Amino acid sequence: MVKQITSIQNPLIKELFQLKEKSRVRKKKLRFLIEGFREISLAINGKYTIETILFDKSIIAQEKVEKLNQSNTIDLIEISKEIYDKLAYRTTTEGIIAVAKTKTHTLSNITFNTPTPLILVAEAPEKPGNIGAILRTADAANIDAVFIANPKTDLYNPNIIRSSVGCVFTNQIATGTTTEIIQFLQSQKIEIFCAALLDDSKLYANQNYKKATAIVVGTEATGLSNEWLNSSKENIIIPMQGVIDSMNVSVSAGILIFEAKRQRDFK
Amino acid sequence: MVKQITSIQNPLIKELFQLKEKSRVRKKKLRFLIEGFREISLAINGKYTIETILFDKSIIAQEKVEKLNQSNTIDLIEISKEIYDKLAYRTTTEGIIAVAKTKTHTLSNITFNTPTPLILVAEAPEKPGNIGAILRTADAANIDAVFIANPKTDLYNPNIIRSSVGCVFTNQIATGTTTEIIQFLQSQKIEIFCAALLDDSKLYANQNYKKATAIVVGTEATGLSNEWLNSSKENIIIPMQGVIDSMNVSVSAGILIFEAKRQRDFK
Repeated sequence: MVKQITSIQNPLIKELFQLKEKSRVRKKKLRFLIEGFREISLAINGKYTIETILFDKSIIAQEKVEKLNQSNTIDLIEISKEIYDKLAYRTTTEGIIAVAKTKTHTLSNITFNTPTPLILVAEAPEKPGNIGAILRTADAANIDAVFIANPKTDLYNPNIIRSSVGCVFTNQIATGTTTEIIQFLQSQKIEIFCAALLDDSKLYANQNYKKATAIVVGTEATGLSNEWLNSSKENIIIPMQGVIDSMNVSVSAGILIFEAKRQRDFK
Repeated sequence: MVKQITSIQNPLIKELFQLKEKSRVRKKKLRFLIEGFREISLAINGKYTIETILFDKSIIAQEKVEKLNQSNTIDLIEISKEIYDKLAYRTTTEGIIAVAKTKTHTLSNITFNTPTPLILVAEAPEKPGNIGAILRTADAANIDAVFIANPKTDLYNPNIIRSSVGCVFTNQIATGTTTEIIQFLQSQKIEIFCAALLDDSKLYANQNYKKATAIVVGTEATGLSNEWLNSSKENIIIPMQGVIDSMNVSVSAGILIFEAKRQRDFK
């Protein structure tokens, strides 16, 4: 049975609008919105619980929406164009939005299928677009985990979901304080390489990333905290040979991760 | 002598607002706006002609502005906060905006200081943020030129200037049609490597980029045109080992460029 909601004043719609807009509400309700067919599919594959799917029949066919409900556990709600436009984040419309339960991203949930995991750590990343690009790279490289240290935004920010094209659901992700993540890495004997523009940083391409490895990147504005720099096996640098002294953080992360992948013969 | 403008109705201010907003006006007037002290400095170093600097004395000291006018050829205009807010593009304010002459970015102006240049080509890039990130990478790697094939935006889009943190002024850049750029590369005996997710693409890390090399990237949505794919020495691929089938284009470009740099011992 497909329900219908046509009033923008409907209490559920008002609640979902808050979920879209406010990190605080997402954290309190433990729910978030996912927009787009592909993104919702990736979340389902990533074992997220989808409670509700709202769709605008003028944009997407009901049969297509029902394909996402093979478990038969999802409430389907037909909504008006006006409501869809209120809940949608993107300008290009797909006509489909899901309500999902958040996951907890604790270090204690992290498991590795290999004795030599490759991990990317980003400390206090700010721009959702950069976090999204990093998650896409992590997915492409099929690395073992992404850790966000001292996060500044919640992972379920609609702009992160969008810019990650759903890779927020395909990666194993943990968040924690810098102290917690360093302790975790040390307890697991994972070597820490910090990307840092320091005089004594070593050329990144001359290091060996074949053992259990964590590559750590900071923000473009302030770099990494001393806590990270003091915990590293080696601080590494991508040489800056032009006029400017920094690259986009997601580009730097991509260069370092794929150098590690190259050394590991892309296995 | 420093002029003053306090009325937002001033005809010059209206004209400059058009320059900020409209690519068409930039192309017609051959002028564009540069916001920020560092960006203006980079443009001056990059031999751009700065005609006018407008500044808000409540944000930036006149002495600091005058440091940019060592040639004594720049008109300095003090503006009100209201005018500054109208002309400024960014949310973080530096209080300084310059009017500069555009350069022509023709292939015929391109010169190389080496027989084995390394060039990045981007076909029809759309997002200013990606173009900016690519220009930052090109600067960091100190590559010999960046070519934009079939450009969709003008280089002096304020969002490109901002996201490139001024690297639009530090790189040697040419624009042209795909046909023109391929002819140029072929005439200079520069080997073309096209990044393409094709079944017969070769692993990027197994190719040799030590000769004169152009690395070509397309858009995330449609990839490269057949014209490029048919002109390449080799089509290359960054293996996608996760769930998603593409990375951010500026990340891909960074990985490929720095693999070439690594093979060239970062010289």
